[in-house]
Amino acid sequence: MATRDIKGKTLLPVELFDELDPAPRLLMGPGPVDLYPRVLRAMSVPIQGQFDPQFTGYMNQTMALYRHVFRTTNEWTFLIDGSARAGIEACLVSLLAPGERMLVLNFGRFGHLLIEIGNRIGAEVVSIEAPWGTVFEPAAVEAAIAKHKPKVVATCQGDTSTTMLQPLAEIGPICRRHDALLYVDCTASLAGNPFETDAWQIDITSAGLQKCLSGPPGSAPITFNGRAADAINHRKHIEAGIKAPGMVEGNGPIIRSNYFDLAMLMDYWSPKRLNHHTEAASMLYAARECARVVLEEGIEAGVARHVEASAALRAGLEAMGLALYGDARHRMANVTGVYIPKEIKDGERVRGQMLEDFGIEIGTSFGPLVGKIWRIGTMGHVARMANVLRCLASFEAVLRRNGYAAPAGAGIDAAYKAYEAD
Amino acid sequence: MATRDIKGKTLLPVELFDELDPAPRLLMGPGPVDLYPRVLRAMSVPIQGQFDPQFTGYMNQTMALYRHVFRTTNEWTFLIDGSARAGIEACLVSLLAPGERMLVLNFGRFGHLLIEIGNRIGAEVVSIEAPWGTVFEPAAVEAAIAKHKPKVVATCQGDTSTTMLQPLAEIGPICRRHDALLYVDCTASLAGNPFETDAWQIDITSAGLQKCLSGPPGSAPITFNGRAADAINHRKHIEAGIKAPGMVEGNGPIIRSNYFDLAMLMDYWSPKRLNHHTEAASMLYAARECARVVLEEGIEAGVARHVEASAALRAGLEAMGLALYGDARHRMANVTGVYIPKEIKDGERVRGQMLEDFGIEIGTSFGPLVGKIWRIGTMGHVARMANVLRCLASFEAVLRRNGYAAPAGAGIDAAYKAYEAD
Repeated sequence: MATRDIKGKTLLPVELFDELDPAPRLLMGPGPVDLYPRVLRAMSVPIQGQFDPQFTGYMNQTMALYRHVFRTTNEWTFLIDGSARAGIEACLVSLLAPGERMLVLNFGRFGHLLIEIGNRIGAEVVSIEAPWGTVFEPAAVEAAIAKHKPKVVATCQGDTSTTMLQPLAEIGPICRRHDALLYVDCTASLAGNPFETDAWQIDITSAGLQKCLSGPPGSAPITFNGRAADAINHRKHIEAGIKAPGMVEGNGPIIRSNYFDLAMLMDYWSPKRLNHHTEAASMLYAARECARVVLEEGIEAGVARHVEASAALRAGLEAMGLALYGDARHRMANVTGVYIPKEIKDGERVRGQMLEDFGIEIGTSFGPLVGKIWRIGTMGHVARMANVLRCLASFEAVLRRNGYAAPAGAGIDAAYKAYEAD
Repeated sequence: MATRDIKGKTLLPVELFDELDPAPRLLMGPGPVDLYPRVLRAMSVPIQGQFDPQFTGYMNQTMALYRHVFRTTNEWTFLIDGSARAGIEACLVSLLAPGERMLVLNFGRFGHLLIEIGNRIGAEVVSIEAPWGTVFEPAAVEAAIAKHKPKVVATCQGDTSTTMLQPLAEIGPICRRHDALLYVDCTASLAGNPFETDAWQIDITSAGLQKCLSGPPGSAPITFNGRAADAINHRKHIEAGIKAPGMVEGNGPIIRSNYFDLAMLMDYWSPKRLNHHTEAASMLYAARECARVVLEEGIEAGVARHVEASAALRAGLEAMGLALYGDARHRMANVTGVYIPKEIKDGERVRGQMLEDFGIEIGTSFGPLVGKIWRIGTMGHVARMANVLRCLASFEAVLRRNGYAAPAGAGIDAAYKAYEAD
């Protein structure tokens, strides 16, 4: 079978490939992770038109659900149709005009990404740097803010590249005192670690579904408060194609992206329903179901489950004689860095055998940690005892085949014990 | 049930809402349309990690399949994770640096969007305008190119706002003669109307799944040739977080978006697999299945089915005494504009009753056409006789209830006749 173009020229032969039939995996890397089965099913539900009253009802429910996930009463709580990095870019490009200053708290690969996005949009980016495997003290943050006087302070809560979790409770009040807006990327941490948008005075934050929310990559929940909304609406500009008398625009510099323009997105997600993009209906169904699953369990219970799973995993790894990466006081509850022991010549071979022989994906590493650590996730739906035990048993076997002999059964026993101690 | 924040303050009570249970719809507006059932099922398939060899295999298959859909041999054929408008912005922001000139062929609401996006990214945008309901003659396009000497010429193929289809076969060669790059937004037309990326010398084009591809909104297939790739790579810049010795960068002005940077996306979709975003795996499954469905039928057969369905719908509407909108020589084969007759006081009430009483969505209109026409889609999976007949029968009944008496049964009979004449 081959297609021909309009002039009769034969194009490449058409190969339709087989039906989708991926091998089963247990995803214990730094994300994405296995989807909760109810979330998978939600995506197979037929869609409706984007202005169908029932569909806009589902949009409103999704907003309400994510207010609870983010622990906020913010009206502006909705989805960006794109991956987690699309959510970051939407927040930053809507807040920062070219030449405006952003201070990034950089403690890993995703801090570099914040700097990178800021540079792309023409912001004046300054940063403070923490050695990989550590986080910032509030005093250091305050000193940098006092020195640079940024419009926006940006940080990740958790950076999977280093497995570190930046404490945030004191950062929001510092930003208020210095009249800076605080942006937090909580993609990797939300729902697996405590996160308090309102109580911590976080002005604007974005996430993704593919970590502790057990959803598919490709939708980015965000929330922002009135301070952030005012800054954004100051730059509001309505598309020529839909402009009508009576619509109010701001007089600040135009937002340099149409797709990521949060001012227009507020109108789309409000009762005005001003046409912007066509909402990704199947992904919205997934996002809605992710939130329902997480809230049904309860945020506190879900965080406790993550803490328990990572504690058991870590106890197991240490009982196997392995060393954990990073400042133990500031580890994320959903991903663990573990040093590759010197007996192992090729860390990637171990990862390959975990995948091929046991169907388990564990993570590699970035930048200065390449070849030095593996990263093992216990996120979302995956963070449960059966998976921790399965991972440790498999890991012990693969390490043995690669020249590292852990005491037989020690990992599993330690993990059991950690679970039983609860 | 209510959540409390970390200080013990009770947040809003948690309401989990009911299980997803949307009322059945037949989507005959300008898109999105009903998903093909195999596409719905594809999204409920468990995902794998983004660098899993089997998953990158699915990515490669998706590239190969869309080469056939776009009728091209372009290596660079992949997905943007976002709605159709994300695809447009990715193409334009990657090609056009601030101050560079773009000529837009504007013949409807989505021409305005091209202008809008161009302005946002700081391009110098010039446009030529065709009255709504008409398209451009090649000579007018050539004259404008000669006058303005743009780097990029941008147009929609089909603009659902006016239901017009711009002929493109002569535009590509004109752009080559004047050394301009041709960008085409084929979101609304691809797979329902002939589209020939290579034969028509289109340098770069983007689409969406939610029209004639019978997929969900939220993924944008694109393709571009070596001329476009050279222009983009001239602006290539690698993220600080993943930069390594030996990676080649361009020396043109940096692309103003990280998420939409096609230079980095080429590295992500190539064997280099350089980390960028996390691919939206479930949407990729959907996109892959959309292409398999379309290619299994065959592009020519699918276009013929769209032509047949819209011809039957139009015959039916005219037999009901209704007048069709726009230049009959240049109508899209997948959407029909029909004037609201003077007997009908409220066109939106008719749309509401079509939805409420018959479960059928038809489209409203934009800008100068508000209150003047309805738009009825026959797109993708929906473009079949049963739906055309069901729509006409329902429409006749609703129009009668609103004061417009079409000859009873005339619409259905004419549509039957059109189908039987084939």
